[in-house]
Amino acid sequence: MICCINGSFGERFAEVAESNGITVVKLAPPLGEPISPAELDKLLVDHPDAEAVAMTHNETSVGLINPLKELAAVVRKHGKLIFVDAVSSMGGTDINVDELGVDVCFSSSQKCFGVPPGLGIGSVSERALGLSAEVTNKGWYFDFKIWEEDQKKGRGTPVTPAIPQIAGLNAALKMIERKGGKQWYFNLYGERNQKIRRGIEKLGLSTFPKKGNESPTVNCINAPKGMEGGLVYEKMRDKGFELAEGYGSIKKKTFRIGNMGYIEMADIDMMLKNLGEVI
Amino acid sequence: MICCINGSFGERFAEVAESNGITVVKLAPPLGEPISPAELDKLLVDHPDAEAVAMTHNETSVGLINPLKELAAVVRKHGKLIFVDAVSSMGGTDINVDELGVDVCFSSSQKCFGVPPGLGIGSVSERALGLSAEVTNKGWYFDFKIWEEDQKKGRGTPVTPAIPQIAGLNAALKMIERKGGKQWYFNLYGERNQKIRRGIEKLGLSTFPKKGNESPTVNCINAPKGMEGGLVYEKMRDKGFELAEGYGSIKKKTFRIGNMGYIEMADIDMMLKNLGEVI
Repeated sequence: MICCINGSFGERFAEVAESNGITVVKLAPPLGEPISPAELDKLLVDHPDAEAVAMTHNETSVGLINPLKELAAVVRKHGKLIFVDAVSSMGGTDINVDELGVDVCFSSSQKCFGVPPGLGIGSVSERALGLSAEVTNKGWYFDFKIWEEDQKKGRGTPVTPAIPQIAGLNAALKMIERKGGKQWYFNLYGERNQKIRRGIEKLGLSTFPKKGNESPTVNCINAPKGMEGGLVYEKMRDKGFELAEGYGSIKKKTFRIGNMGYIEMADIDMMLKNLGEVI
Repeated sequence: MICCINGSFGERFAEVAESNGITVVKLAPPLGEPISPAELDKLLVDHPDAEAVAMTHNETSVGLINPLKELAAVVRKHGKLIFVDAVSSMGGTDINVDELGVDVCFSSSQKCFGVPPGLGIGSVSERALGLSAEVTNKGWYFDFKIWEEDQKKGRGTPVTPAIPQIAGLNAALKMIERKGGKQWYFNLYGERNQKIRRGIEKLGLSTFPKKGNESPTVNCINAPKGMEGGLVYEKMRDKGFELAEGYGSIKKKTFRIGNMGYIEMADIDMMLKNLGEVI
């Protein structure tokens, strides 16, 4: 399996693969840079025996979004399976899994959908379903065929699920429909993010990822001179704003501003005003 | 692995083992009878290469509780690992995992603790933790060592958990403490169950499992003559009482009355009065 790694969650994906006995080849550009379709193409030429390519669509640890459409096209060309961790992008930006040919795409309730945590959300292609039937010793809990069987029988899920979160997700999706549908929701994410980005620039701050690859759902911001990211986080917390600390190797050099769930434009104005005072 | 099977959830345990490539030997007495410690002992003598014994403590599908203490003593004598599915017993009756030598004991939030579903609860022995470290290709999500590592670091859990259910479980456990501790809670289960059992007998109904092995948390009741269990369930539902249908091969011949979560004695009186009218 080829694992595209842009940060902590890409590393996690490779760990998960290895813990299942899969041989992993890593494609890891310097931190802050997206996965290059050309480099992925080259790696697939060098490893014709690869069965699948895994990637993190939106890497929250560095606030970066990958060019999923272009990357998926490269993988499709080579006929490999595509696994996409869309934990922090599904719901915040369009992901047309059928058009892109994504075989497994997963996310969770507590990110862009703004529902409490405890529920995984995913799609599986016919191709992946078919192949999974032939895999042995794959365990029970994540066996796609078992979940498919219960859905086909109209029984729902093979285990008692996180019902409150399902009810919450249902309510959130109905709210999105009522307010204008998914495009309206994606636009809202884009508008809020633009507002945060412009505000940050006005304060003289810059974002960590390479220009043009900034995530629409979380901004990873370089800490101001002479001040560690953790201190910005703590001081903002004292003022009642829950930002996020930096993650992994850039923990001290950055801090992050999430843009997920229920946020009003006025909240962003207030946050930026307070951030200006803190730095 | 030796799998003790009293019904649907014991069968499930065997399926889970087989899906992980484990060779399973089944010990399955006739439906409604508990696992016999003597028969388990004999099976362990016949299969000295067995590594573990799995059992369902309380089999809700037939309303039966197994003699865990005696069964655990047999397994301990042979030095094998003991895995206990305590989904519908933990919280409703005492399970002293250390004293019994149970290596893995698991349950969930929505049964005896009366919290919404979505959270798994479990204990793992030092022996099982040590052995699990040597297992390869075991996947990531259920790797005990990963969960242990994060707990030791004080980070909580390696993935974002079902936080609302954790808060709910915390509230439920505090309530139990406040009202008199776990023995008070076990007694409450016993009292409620006695009340249900006596009421059923007064109505001329009988319980399905072999005498002396009736579960304290769910009663599996033989359907009255000339009336399928499913009809009892539906008619009670029409009256506002959520009982449970029979399960598996005895679906038509039985119905079930759960005794988990928040139930007042007056609720039981009302339920029995209505059940008398229905049958």
